[in-house]
Amino acid sequence: MAEQISFARGAPSLDIVDVDGLRAAAQEAFAEDPAGTTAYGTAVGYPPLREWIAARHGVGPEQVFLTNGSMQADAFLFEHLVRPGDEVVVERPTYDRTLLSLRQLGADVRMVELQPDGIDVQALAAMLGDGLRPRLAHIIPNFQNPAGYTLSGDKRQRLLELADRHEFTIFEDDPYVALRFRGQASPTMLSLDGRGRVVYASSFSKTVCPGIRVGYLVGPAETIADIVKLATGTYISPNMVAQSIVYRFCVSGALERSIETVSRALAERAQRLAEALRRELPEAQFVEPDGGYFMWVTLPEGTDVAALAAAAAQRGVTFVKGTDFLLEGGENTLRLAYSGVTPEQIEEGVGRLAQALSSLSAAAA
Amino acid sequence: MAEQISFARGAPSLDIVDVDGLRAAAQEAFAEDPAGTTAYGTAVGYPPLREWIAARHGVGPEQVFLTNGSMQADAFLFEHLVRPGDEVVVERPTYDRTLLSLRQLGADVRMVELQPDGIDVQALAAMLGDGLRPRLAHIIPNFQNPAGYTLSGDKRQRLLELADRHEFTIFEDDPYVALRFRGQASPTMLSLDGRGRVVYASSFSKTVCPGIRVGYLVGPAETIADIVKLATGTYISPNMVAQSIVYRFCVSGALERSIETVSRALAERAQRLAEALRRELPEAQFVEPDGGYFMWVTLPEGTDVAALAAAAAQRGVTFVKGTDFLLEGGENTLRLAYSGVTPEQIEEGVGRLAQALSSLSAAAA
Repeated sequence: MAEQISFARGAPSLDIVDVDGLRAAAQEAFAEDPAGTTAYGTAVGYPPLREWIAARHGVGPEQVFLTNGSMQADAFLFEHLVRPGDEVVVERPTYDRTLLSLRQLGADVRMVELQPDGIDVQALAAMLGDGLRPRLAHIIPNFQNPAGYTLSGDKRQRLLELADRHEFTIFEDDPYVALRFRGQASPTMLSLDGRGRVVYASSFSKTVCPGIRVGYLVGPAETIADIVKLATGTYISPNMVAQSIVYRFCVSGALERSIETVSRALAERAQRLAEALRRELPEAQFVEPDGGYFMWVTLPEGTDVAALAAAAAQRGVTFVKGTDFLLEGGENTLRLAYSGVTPEQIEEGVGRLAQALSSLSAAAA
Repeated sequence: MAEQISFARGAPSLDIVDVDGLRAAAQEAFAEDPAGTTAYGTAVGYPPLREWIAARHGVGPEQVFLTNGSMQADAFLFEHLVRPGDEVVVERPTYDRTLLSLRQLGADVRMVELQPDGIDVQALAAMLGDGLRPRLAHIIPNFQNPAGYTLSGDKRQRLLELADRHEFTIFEDDPYVALRFRGQASPTMLSLDGRGRVVYASSFSKTVCPGIRVGYLVGPAETIADIVKLATGTYISPNMVAQSIVYRFCVSGALERSIETVSRALAERAQRLAEALRRELPEAQFVEPDGGYFMWVTLPEGTDVAALAAAAAQRGVTFVKGTDFLLEGGENTLRLAYSGVTPEQIEEGVGRLAQALSSLSAAAA
């Protein structure tokens, strides 16, 4: 049996997780603040970490809410804002779990094409002009999941103008922001927002480790206060042990070192993936990402990616079909995650993908 | 300003938390299983802890679901089982947060009197005979919150018979079970249940520490599988770091030592509280608890406990009014938590409570 190679899961390989840094942070957490680390704490999160995040975003702590992973943050925000039948704008394609959550809430989900520089704001403006009245627009601005694309500075401004004019909330979902390989980051929409239109989410899953499950929201103080009430009623308080460990990891400098390690490794993996695809699968179209975990690949019109997935699985390679990130179409697209694979696995995996694709053409011929 | 004394919060004082044991467990977690501790894991929880819990309850791991504190477990179970208008039986009095959660879900909450040996099963049988068709009965069998009472073995059997006959689920909410001061524990209803009528919940908040936020459900495999789907959609996976630490704490023997420390300290506090009440507040009626965190106190008919709370707060003493745990009545009752106070604080606090009560009589005279 050949080694299994997963381009499916958006998770880091263990070699880029700073396990020693986490051990040290855990020691410090229990030694330096045993009371705050072991007690219930409050629903807002571990206060020192809350203040640290607030300072990073230049806001007051009352605008920050910490929770058990950023999906849980999404869940609270949606519970707070979205009612059945509400129109919600998402990118096309977008994160499959967000799509599922919104549909389960009964939202009227409207996908707007994602371009390599971000959501098509002209198309969105036209839809708004035609009477669309969304409650929320969900945007993953940096190194989008699943596409790997990044929203331009101009489009950030334009989105804020649209949100102001048409009175919807922008949910700026930004877990990958720290993992930039090249170029200059655009300011967050949160930082550009003067009217409380943006709720920002991020997490430590990609910079510390996923198992730590610490995510957060930054938004208008009233929105945050309402969400804190939901959280209190759901679980009293989030994980203080984990948040206290993250806090020590941040202030010790381990976070910055971890971000460097992860970004350098991912940059190499992304480059190796692009090179291997150009060499082995020249028919594949993609934009090389400037950061993050993911690359979106479009195969020639008519390629049956569902069949490709089956043929690849037979060869010990997995990925996620593009259709999982869409409401319709995209049968010739797929998402490749390079976060959990070594450069050697990337070479081998793309070789197997090419064989799998050939096997489809052979079968069809 | 006098030292603040809180009989309000059901949480342990730091002196009975094994902080060194937690530090050691965290070291082992990262050293012995770095991959399992830092990765997303799955929505069911950290597999070794899941198996450990399953073995303790004599069930298969597929019957166990771990989550971020047992309130979150309640929330998933209620989301799974309870629809607006559903009849749900709870004890009178019961845990205020459960009451609130059920009412927010739109449940038709029916309180059944709690006696010192547990819920009044005769009254429940009569209500069932009169046509009550509950979806769920929520029972805190050991050292109940807020009353401190424990359900007898006979009543456990009787409840199971009623659940079988009338086809409702018993939610056996058992966070305090390990904290027994004296006497023999009755078997869990989970262990007596032959027909999948019981969903059992417990947590490590009272035996490890609250800030670790690890709770769990044990129930029929199909129910657990449905709840796992809800969890995946809500937060992907619960906290692996915390659960891995708890696992090491359990298997190292620290858990048994911690339970001994906590039970011994709480037994002394409960005894001191009872003695102080008999001496300083002879009009107070209560049953001395055999374990847990709480004592329920009934003052003479006509005593205004809301006014007492205000008078006590002026003297730096807090507690929770009985009315918080009820839908109606109980204006002369209160809950005293002795988990977070030292024996010296108990003496001082009860003295101040007695002064506060005298001040009410003086004002009324």
